[in-house]
Amino acid sequence: MSSTEFGVRPGEVTVELPDTFDAGLCFIGRIHTPWSNRDDCPKNPRESQAECSIEVDQRWAGALKDVESCSHLAVLYWMHRAPRNLVVQVPHHYGVQRGTFALRSPARPNPIALSVVRLLHIDANLLTVIGLDCLDGTPLLDLKPYFASTDSAPEAVVGWREQHKG
Amino acid sequence: MSSTEFGVRPGEVTVELPDTFDAGLCFIGRIHTPWSNRDDCPKNPRESQAECSIEVDQRWAGALKDVESCSHLAVLYWMHRAPRNLVVQVPHHYGVQRGTFALRSPARPNPIALSVVRLLHIDANLLTVIGLDCLDGTPLLDLKPYFASTDSAPEAVVGWREQHKG
Repeated sequence: MSSTEFGVRPGEVTVELPDTFDAGLCFIGRIHTPWSNRDDCPKNPRESQAECSIEVDQRWAGALKDVESCSHLAVLYWMHRAPRNLVVQVPHHYGVQRGTFALRSPARPNPIALSVVRLLHIDANLLTVIGLDCLDGTPLLDLKPYFASTDSAPEAVVGWREQHKG
Repeated sequence: MSSTEFGVRPGEVTVELPDTFDAGLCFIGRIHTPWSNRDDCPKNPRESQAECSIEVDQRWAGALKDVESCSHLAVLYWMHRAPRNLVVQVPHHYGVQRGTFALRSPARPNPIALSVVRLLHIDANLLTVIGLDCLDGTPLLDLKPYFASTDSAPEAVVGWREQHKG
């Protein structure tokens, strides 16, 4: 990772990371996208209508049973190139301090990203989806059925973002 | 973990787990709920209007800046008592085989749970929320602002679930 890619900007605050981990993750597949540089990635998952693919390792392919009946999925993946020690960040495109938990930045104590995608089709262990914005080769952690009844909150407001717009 | 709690049911399929982990997680806090037994937990996060609290470790408390402006959060937490080797499961309340990635069951290769919660208030490092269904003491992994523009999909359908209802 180059220091220019994830350098600490003025106003950003870091903490000492814990000495040990509490749990372990296994990568269960890879995400294939058209973007191999961070600068090329869409700024958010709905900015692009690009079809991306999710390749699930053979070991876990059996777990895809019934997934084809889902119109949308929650995809969890690992932002393997992000720093984990930032508590306050100054996002490039906003230029002001924001707490890490108020941001979707990949830089966070556990760099797990969440994207809601539309499932187009599944061919064996390969899913074609719309709605990802990550780098090509990103490690996959989990796929979940998206339930509108519990996962959809169209009334949700992110106040700092609204103020930024207004 | 007792075997009755997470025994393999007839029709369930397991795989051999990888020998090593690919990445490590640190627990960043704990979730406090009224439920200390699995049987007492609500079946899904919107079944209960109970106020739950999320205690963020002091180390990460600075990352809560601006979070109070969010009406909803995506909460990621670790289902530390779940088995990780099930690819096909037979959920108790459905009684038929479903692929793990078509279910929200805690049993999955990386037992990371996702809940969308409504934020009531924050007092220092303690958040009060509605919308959790997990055991008291569950380890916290991440908090994210919920953006309706990218996270809400009210039109989403989980086909197998609709068929079960119909």
